[in-house]
Amino acid sequence: MIIIGEKINTSRKTVADAVRNRNKQFILDLAKAQESAGANYIDVNVGTFISTEPEDMAWVAALVSGAVKIPLSVDSPNPKAVEAALGILKGHALINSISLEKERFSGIIPLVREFRCSVIGLLIEDGNLPVEADGKMKIADALIGKLGKEGIKPDSIFIDPMVQPLSTSMNGLTETFAFTQRFKSAFPDVHLICGLSNVSFGLPNRKLINRAFLASMMALGMDSAICDPLDKELMGLIAAQDALSGKDQFCMNFISLSRSGKI
Amino acid sequence: MIIIGEKINTSRKTVADAVRNRNKQFILDLAKAQESAGANYIDVNVGTFISTEPEDMAWVAALVSGAVKIPLSVDSPNPKAVEAALGILKGHALINSISLEKERFSGIIPLVREFRCSVIGLLIEDGNLPVEADGKMKIADALIGKLGKEGIKPDSIFIDPMVQPLSTSMNGLTETFAFTQRFKSAFPDVHLICGLSNVSFGLPNRKLINRAFLASMMALGMDSAICDPLDKELMGLIAAQDALSGKDQFCMNFISLSRSGKI
Repeated sequence: MIIIGEKINTSRKTVADAVRNRNKQFILDLAKAQESAGANYIDVNVGTFISTEPEDMAWVAALVSGAVKIPLSVDSPNPKAVEAALGILKGHALINSISLEKERFSGIIPLVREFRCSVIGLLIEDGNLPVEADGKMKIADALIGKLGKEGIKPDSIFIDPMVQPLSTSMNGLTETFAFTQRFKSAFPDVHLICGLSNVSFGLPNRKLINRAFLASMMALGMDSAICDPLDKELMGLIAAQDALSGKDQFCMNFISLSRSGKI
Repeated sequence: MIIIGEKINTSRKTVADAVRNRNKQFILDLAKAQESAGANYIDVNVGTFISTEPEDMAWVAALVSGAVKIPLSVDSPNPKAVEAALGILKGHALINSISLEKERFSGIIPLVREFRCSVIGLLIEDGNLPVEADGKMKIADALIGKLGKEGIKPDSIFIDPMVQPLSTSMNGLTETFAFTQRFKSAFPDVHLICGLSNVSFGLPNRKLINRAFLASMMALGMDSAICDPLDKELMGLIAAQDALSGKDQFCMNFISLSRSGKI
């Protein structure tokens, strides 16, 4: 399972304050804690600082990349902010994200081309965010095709189906589940990624919904998540699921994480 | 999700003591607590009392059925113990269990025929407990066929694939997962049931494994489990999963259980 640590995001007030005040220690601690908890990428999002996003992104990217061994996930729809970070990271990063929306695609694709890095592709196009599996498959097919033409290999692509909140869904997330199975059968080498926290928006007991969603999606083929690696129960479920699905032979990693008290 | 409460089992010392000493209150409390926590059946197993199993089973069955509104799951391979309970319950019960093992089949099938009750079918035959999906499908097919000839309707049959412990499985439980998908596609009206606790045998952090297994199996089509309804986190995951899979419209049940503090 590939885990993108979501904590460095200025939509959280403490992070916004730290970025505004150039509080290095706070950001460094948050990055190192996530790495140590098992994250594979550190997501950085300073999108709430609209007018200064490129320079804020550059500051965070330089700071975090100097302190952790894992790559960053550069989280912005703004090509200038993404470019500022990628220049510092020399392309050793995941771009979060591209989509079929014309402006976003044309803004981000030159950077994917130049830096040859991995990229998250959102299943949305102008005026169309499909809920049903058929519609999601069509956009996935088109987006993977376009990225392939740019020379991006399947295993450098992470497809995000943009899961809607359960609270607004009439039939649960059955279409997302159906899409996941069809997608992994059609594109076995392309990663499937989800953000977890949006799923439970508007409901009580949100962590329960997030955990059940995570385990279900992993069983159906999701192999990456944008989530909170400091949630010990969640990380425990991920390790358990990796063992159940045969990705952790003899449960070595699960047993070792249990013994060290990390899960 | 159909939940079989597993707590009244004399393999647990406190339950064995209560049955031996005819401690009515202890057994009643355990039955009522499980009903109140959301169980759909109360499993009763006195199998450790080999020489007195039929009379002990009859005592527990009469006691529990007089105190709860939900039916019992009569858990024994011994036809005499099953018959003793079914006589008292007038067939309003689930027989746990039958299999293709000759002696077990011929001992239990007359009771299924006489009492026309639901039955759990284990995927095992004499000398063969298949681990692979192919082998499990063959036995499921034969067992469902035989039960069908006895007039048992598909939705009165619960198939238990007899999941082996993860700790002894080279490739995780991938064959169980593959079987589950094939089974639900071949027999959409037959229930699929699992015991949870055996899965994590021999591993640390057993509850994490059980929870991840439960959520995965529900996502793949399992609709019943023999488990501990007093495990609040587990019951919360089940409610979350039912909401995610569209079985709990507008999350009404999930929200109500959350508000009442039951999950």
